[in-house]
Amino acid sequence: MSEQKSTLFDGSYGLSVRVPGINFEEAREKVVSSFSAAGFGLPPGTTDLNMAGIFNKKFPGQFDLPQMQVIGFCSPPHALKALTIEKSASLLVPCNVVIAETQDGCIEVAAIDPYAILGIVNRKDEMRELVEEVRTMIKAGLDGIVAK
Amino acid sequence: MSEQKSTLFDGSYGLSVRVPGINFEEAREKVVSSFSAAGFGLPPGTTDLNMAGIFNKKFPGQFDLPQMQVIGFCSPPHALKALTIEKSASLLVPCNVVIAETQDGCIEVAAIDPYAILGIVNRKDEMRELVEEVRTMIKAGLDGIVAK
Repeated sequence: MSEQKSTLFDGSYGLSVRVPGINFEEAREKVVSSFSAAGFGLPPGTTDLNMAGIFNKKFPGQFDLPQMQVIGFCSPPHALKALTIEKSASLLVPCNVVIAETQDGCIEVAAIDPYAILGIVNRKDEMRELVEEVRTMIKAGLDGIVAK
Repeated sequence: MSEQKSTLFDGSYGLSVRVPGINFEEAREKVVSSFSAAGFGLPPGTTDLNMAGIFNKKFPGQFDLPQMQVIGFCSPPHALKALTIEKSASLLVPCNVVIAETQDGCIEVAAIDPYAILGIVNRKDEMRELVEEVRTMIKAGLDGIVAK
């Protein structure tokens, strides 16, 4: 997806882009606006986890992880379709997007690949079209972050 | 796990229990205290999604879904191990637990089955022990909800 390969995320269940030249806060704003343009929202109570913050508090100085924020995006029409197909799909929402800072000070953004989710759900045939749609939206969200 | 089969959740990627005789708010308190006793916490910014609330706001009267709350539990030592093994695992946190009300007014609680997560991750051999530990904790959390 990006010209430069991610150094933090590998591709089997995540889609990722490398975004040089911006800081963490700018990256967060870009991610939110680009995923919003792609059709995702941040519903009240959605995931917004500062992983390094959690680990720093619990295990000060005992870990070597980059700054890393996990944000849960949701497309309510797609979530509704998924939960109508099978209620267990509630265990798989929201769509996680992770913003992380590499050791060389670059920003990388990864999103869960809906194809990995398709591998988990029961009613794969009914879910397939929905998963393709969400995957297209996620790719648009990621592309929007690196667009000039 | 429970004597009565879940009517909302099927078993392929969720572990579930049926909890008759309590209301939604009591169920939430039981879930939080039982998962806390099992070693899980609710870090700041963790998932707490009222799915029916989101859909009601977006599509009033257009859906037929039970009351359903998605809560993200985290065991920081296990999350730290997972992210140390592979950073992409940040796309798979926190562990979702769903509380839902059935049409007959019963409460059902489901949690993501870590075995399903093991099917997704790259470094399965390194993740296996960790996944077994978290699965044992999740089963203890669910058992605690139905314990007398």
